[in-house]
Amino acid sequence: MKEELHPRLTVRLFTDRKCFGPGVAELLHHVEAQHSLRAAAGAMEMAYSKAWKMIKNAEECLGFRLLNSAAGGKNGGGATLTPEAARLLADYDAYSSALKREAERLFAAHFSWTSDSVKPDQKQ
Amino acid sequence: MKEELHPRLTVRLFTDRKCFGPGVAELLHHVEAQHSLRAAAGAMEMAYSKAWKMIKNAEECLGFRLLNSAAGGKNGGGATLTPEAARLLADYDAYSSALKREAERLFAAHFSWTSDSVKPDQKQ
Repeated sequence: MKEELHPRLTVRLFTDRKCFGPGVAELLHHVEAQHSLRAAAGAMEMAYSKAWKMIKNAEECLGFRLLNSAAGGKNGGGATLTPEAARLLADYDAYSSALKREAERLFAAHFSWTSDSVKPDQKQ
Repeated sequence: MKEELHPRLTVRLFTDRKCFGPGVAELLHHVEAQHSLRAAAGAMEMAYSKAWKMIKNAEECLGFRLLNSAAGGKNGGGATLTPEAARLLADYDAYSSALKREAERLFAAHFSWTSDSVKPDQKQ
């Protein structure tokens, strides 16, 4: 049986450019769990250099540090989140969750026809 | 002066895979205006073959036709929207707009700290 049509949101934070989105958020969650940017990058099957650049770009854009210890140090990026990063991450997650609930609520109102005659194959 | 941090949403419609998103929506808007998939692709600086694949993928996923005339015909994709496509596009646009308003409303509640001490440089 085919899945019903449903919404998916991507939430990004911008200034004049992209500051923060699901990729950096996922990276920070892994750093939080593993205390290492290298391990976090590995968990996402991402090159360490790319992960480092993502963090640097977000830090420059946001105007504050996300990681406490020097990324790229002797231990290859041993790191913990700064208090600002932990707060941003928690706020971003709560905000994304709230928006996703809203997206599901509004979907039924805007796309009710997707479960009627236009798509009879999805009624089974 | 740096722009203030603000949200940007991407709204996609999925079944078990991606059916519809901002790319196909933009393509359909151009088809609506120019009555040609080739012209629509050109307006987006996209290869015609890519535009055609995007439409086909969305049509298969949604279970209905989006374009009235044969894409890839003698005239290279002269086309108009089916009534279903016009309805989907209008609903998608209204839904996206409603969500974006909601995203702005919720942002202030979740990220009020971005305009206080954490980012003093953005107060000017």
